[in-house]
Amino acid sequence: MDRVLSGMQASGKLHLGNLIGALQNWVKLQEKYDCFYFIADWHGLTTGYENPSAIKESTNDLLINFLAAGLDPDKCTIFLQSKILQHAELHLLLSMITPLGWLERVPTYKEKQQELKDRDLSTYGFLGYPLLQTADIIIYKAKYVPVGVDQVPHLEISREIARRFNYLYKEVFPEPEALLTKFPKVPGIDGRKMSKSYDNAIYLSDSPEAAEQKLRTMMTDPARKRRMDKGTPELSPVFQLHKIFSSKEEQDEV
Amino acid sequence: MDRVLSGMQASGKLHLGNLIGALQNWVKLQEKYDCFYFIADWHGLTTGYENPSAIKESTNDLLINFLAAGLDPDKCTIFLQSKILQHAELHLLLSMITPLGWLERVPTYKEKQQELKDRDLSTYGFLGYPLLQTADIIIYKAKYVPVGVDQVPHLEISREIARRFNYLYKEVFPEPEALLTKFPKVPGIDGRKMSKSYDNAIYLSDSPEAAEQKLRTMMTDPARKRRMDKGTPELSPVFQLHKIFSSKEEQDEV
Repeated sequence: MDRVLSGMQASGKLHLGNLIGALQNWVKLQEKYDCFYFIADWHGLTTGYENPSAIKESTNDLLINFLAAGLDPDKCTIFLQSKILQHAELHLLLSMITPLGWLERVPTYKEKQQELKDRDLSTYGFLGYPLLQTADIIIYKAKYVPVGVDQVPHLEISREIARRFNYLYKEVFPEPEALLTKFPKVPGIDGRKMSKSYDNAIYLSDSPEAAEQKLRTMMTDPARKRRMDKGTPELSPVFQLHKIFSSKEEQDEV
Repeated sequence: MDRVLSGMQASGKLHLGNLIGALQNWVKLQEKYDCFYFIADWHGLTTGYENPSAIKESTNDLLINFLAAGLDPDKCTIFLQSKILQHAELHLLLSMITPLGWLERVPTYKEKQQELKDRDLSTYGFLGYPLLQTADIIIYKAKYVPVGVDQVPHLEISREIARRFNYLYKEVFPEPEALLTKFPKVPGIDGRKMSKSYDNAIYLSDSPEAAEQKLRTMMTDPARKRRMDKGTPELSPVFQLHKIFSSKEEQDEV
């Protein structure tokens, strides 16, 4: 059975994007693959190092949500990253062979620094994020990694690092392949990708009233400036959510 | 008893600089302090990642030389860095709080890259060298680190990182202090600091003939261009060696 590896960063409550983009997919995959799912608490530190107690809390929440969503410990392996020191060891070893330029050129690096301007992310660890991710994946010789489209560059660098290791020493690590998820991008209430870090998320633990309140503030159609303009719902973040969550019948009705 | 920590990089045979600059000093220190001495095989990878088998060999050589020089396992703790995964773990944790700029500004960083132009040292791990060194030191809450003058900037960054950790979280790590060694700089046969990496070293395992041959090639007095110029032995690398290795009587005679 081919091995699949995926992790979820411990940095806050789970939101709709996590459920749709990852967790529901994980539940499906556990039926077909030898799945290793982990809570990435060390990754949580890359952006959340100033508040590590939040990561600890979030770790427990994540585990509860994993089980609630349908992950079955009899069918898959669930673990906590920081309990496996060998991730840190391999991360260190890989650091020796990884060119700085590869890490600096990962598109999400500059992007995320821009998005999270209020935090100081000019750290060595934040730059090394894709390297730790690589160690997480290849240490289990995973064949597949379920990712969203925006994560593909991260996986590409993992493949390059595995290749470089195999080339310098010997063929040890298979190059992990992407298993693209069906809904790679769930918009947040501001239209950007839904993310804990951007403060634009609808959380699984939000009450129905709180969720409704958040939805009300979303842009419906940014291109329709005047009432007589033709609507372009495909540009509307709220319409994206509608397409994801409403049943076929409801969509036809609207 | 105050704790002292020091490591020696596993990247080749030991030379006179190691003996004078470090090992003889270590032997003295074991009488007065709670000494932890380790073979830094992971550090060996920062510059020697292309040839890891040399590091393995060198690890055994180092241990033999430690014992031959007089380190006594009953008086001090001798260990191999890579056997203690917690070094890698702490290195990872510290990476999250360490600004890239601090590492980029360590003077030896650019310097060593320049000196070892034939190797590709634009790696993430080479930049992180002082961070791993910091983890090595503070994980044992060492009070003193015996260093040469050229290592003081490395120790300064360790102190800064420890301070930053204590400031962000809580007072955990004492800031390590330098124990300056008496002969911080032993020149190699080309006049630069004697170093395995610069290929300018006289090795402990060199035969007397081989050592003599190497010494013969050294500059005696670079400032004395004509025979009638006054001599300036203090500029001569070979004179430095003379001052270190010859007895008081021999020096007076010359």
